[in-house]
Amino acid sequence: MIRKQGVVIMFKFSKRVPADGTDAVGAILKAAADPKIISFAGGLPAPELFPVERMKKATDKVYAEHGRQALQYGAAKGVTELRELILKRVKEKENVEASLENVMVTTGSEQAIDLVGKAFVNPGDTVLVEEPTYLCALDVFRSYGANFVSVPMDEDGMKMDALEEALKQHPETALIYTVPNFQNPTGRTMPADRRKKFAELAAKYDVPVLEDNPYGDIRFAGQHVPSVKSFDRAGKVFYMSTFSKILAPGFRLGWLVADPKVIEKLTVLKQSADLHTDNLVQYVVTEFFKENDVDAHVKEISNLYGKRKQLMIEGIKKYFPKNVKYTDPEGGMFLWVEVPGVNDTVELFKQCLEHDVAFVPGDPFYAGKAQPGTFRLNYSNMQEDQIKVGLKRLGEALTQALEHKE
Amino acid sequence: MIRKQGVVIMFKFSKRVPADGTDAVGAILKAAADPKIISFAGGLPAPELFPVERMKKATDKVYAEHGRQALQYGAAKGVTELRELILKRVKEKENVEASLENVMVTTGSEQAIDLVGKAFVNPGDTVLVEEPTYLCALDVFRSYGANFVSVPMDEDGMKMDALEEALKQHPETALIYTVPNFQNPTGRTMPADRRKKFAELAAKYDVPVLEDNPYGDIRFAGQHVPSVKSFDRAGKVFYMSTFSKILAPGFRLGWLVADPKVIEKLTVLKQSADLHTDNLVQYVVTEFFKENDVDAHVKEISNLYGKRKQLMIEGIKKYFPKNVKYTDPEGGMFLWVEVPGVNDTVELFKQCLEHDVAFVPGDPFYAGKAQPGTFRLNYSNMQEDQIKVGLKRLGEALTQALEHKE
Repeated sequence: MIRKQGVVIMFKFSKRVPADGTDAVGAILKAAADPKIISFAGGLPAPELFPVERMKKATDKVYAEHGRQALQYGAAKGVTELRELILKRVKEKENVEASLENVMVTTGSEQAIDLVGKAFVNPGDTVLVEEPTYLCALDVFRSYGANFVSVPMDEDGMKMDALEEALKQHPETALIYTVPNFQNPTGRTMPADRRKKFAELAAKYDVPVLEDNPYGDIRFAGQHVPSVKSFDRAGKVFYMSTFSKILAPGFRLGWLVADPKVIEKLTVLKQSADLHTDNLVQYVVTEFFKENDVDAHVKEISNLYGKRKQLMIEGIKKYFPKNVKYTDPEGGMFLWVEVPGVNDTVELFKQCLEHDVAFVPGDPFYAGKAQPGTFRLNYSNMQEDQIKVGLKRLGEALTQALEHKE
Repeated sequence: MIRKQGVVIMFKFSKRVPADGTDAVGAILKAAADPKIISFAGGLPAPELFPVERMKKATDKVYAEHGRQALQYGAAKGVTELRELILKRVKEKENVEASLENVMVTTGSEQAIDLVGKAFVNPGDTVLVEEPTYLCALDVFRSYGANFVSVPMDEDGMKMDALEEALKQHPETALIYTVPNFQNPTGRTMPADRRKKFAELAAKYDVPVLEDNPYGDIRFAGQHVPSVKSFDRAGKVFYMSTFSKILAPGFRLGWLVADPKVIEKLTVLKQSADLHTDNLVQYVVTEFFKENDVDAHVKEISNLYGKRKQLMIEGIKKYFPKNVKYTDPEGGMFLWVEVPGVNDTVELFKQCLEHDVAFVPGDPFYAGKAQPGTFRLNYSNMQEDQIKVGLKRLGEALTQALEHKE
């Protein structure tokens, strides 16, 4: 097993495996991990708000009351009490009426994307995505052989006329993927009328929509917008979310709400993926909801992130060159910056690294050609003083990069 | 979302999704779930031996010492301390020398099979499997478009002359899958000389081997046999195991040890599958190992299963028709029965159900044509008195079925 000096063992990987050297984001996060660098590159929740003590209490109760069940094999669809809790929440928050046959637990919401990709995307099929979109979703669909068509966005998210045009031009479309609330990476939110239209287009063109809503609960300004799913009369929208942003991402607990036929098939694929999701944390989260005011906890998170976002916006206004554009999200964890006149975003990233500050360059969020000079900033995981110092450094780096260009 | 009366929504699923009505095992387990039926159909560990109290203690300590880390996102490869613990165990138990770059944590060992299938099996590729083999592995490889070639077994597992013949005839082989210890479903174990030959053939024909060892630690008779991996000089064997049979299957904690190049690629695919495995239980199991004598716990499990297996063998000898063949495993959770003169195993299953006793018919364990009259019996999850009564019922049902035939 110990590698012989200089001997490289060769393997024939399948077409689904990305080529060497394509993990751009891995390289970026590695570069940004240097402790002297203030990094806005990550995408982590604020750990100081994790309800560790209360989670311990819930866990103790699970061991006392369901110890053996929590440690034994469980059902592929998930623990029934947790699925009931999800249904209740989806009804309350998103006005989505559903019953047990409509819901399954997944190992993080990433698994929901993976199962939907595996179940719907044959090699060569078209997947419509926002431009830009969540990069890990691109990785999943790419692994199943998707051809991407990017649908342009404006400040209100995916444009519906552009979506309809894409659906007309691509009758082979297998799936539309969208993050309508506080989108990753842009922080943009789609208004209700657009969502209604979205559901209608899905029905008209008979194409399933995967509505990914990890951030929707984390709203610190503006009003709640009903989900695309709440406008779905044709059963073509699959709604997914997660406990990662409101409780604990380490637990890897997500869920999907969809037509029973879809849930049934995805459950078969889930059995092949990991049999079922960790039982212990399914019971723990169920118990946590019984004992705690989760909405109050979510409000606390939202308040903190809102404060951090505001600091970041102030830093942008104070330190960034005046022609730089940026989004000002009403929730979630990210905002999006567009620096006009930059041709090479990775080069810009390197220049910022020299100023000891980091972000994720926009390129990997684009399925097709990237818009140069774009990048994503995370504010949820950064202490206030770091945001202040970091934005100052970033402003200096950008100013210098643009001056150097002229 | 509520299904309209009589309206069935249609979806175009990918080629990876099994057709309707193909979940034979699901139907069997459902039929066997009737409380009046004594079912040997399942594959569960004995929950009465789950170390619930000690696991609670370990969990409390994790919350106290690593609370925020356990709840936060983690590394795709897994928690470093757990990977170190796995390396130590793999060295001690299997004489496999490996370092951190060789090991990744998976969400149950099922995920290790899935990732290897995804990474190595292109549609149309050949996968060599034991005849019969673990049915969930067949499901995984089938979902990636595998063509199966079954390699015949004898009482000592996969036959090496038959394996070499298959490798010669199928140069397009992408992978060989094997369960060398207390195989599921047969309970058979491959002797050391055959394993050595296996590793040599993998090197000679340059084909990777996935060595799946979930049951190896649960040995109640005979001597430990070194893993195929321990004979691997070419880096072509991937060794996988799990904490499911020795600690808690509900935790979904498995691992894979392989060449660094393979681990690197599988880690990229794992990020798309579920980002990483639940952090909490990774820390909990690490802590459990620090505080407890796991080998003593495994011995307790093995003793109980050995006792149950013995009772089952006694029941077979006492009640089964004399021409029935069966395996007598030295470990694991299953034994395998062959009833000569039976043409339709599913019909036999139904006859046994009428006697209020159940098993898993052999058919789904075969990639190709099944040997009629075969079935799998589980003894790990059955109380002693149920084994006695169940075997009596099974003996009566078999006797009647064979008499009825004459």
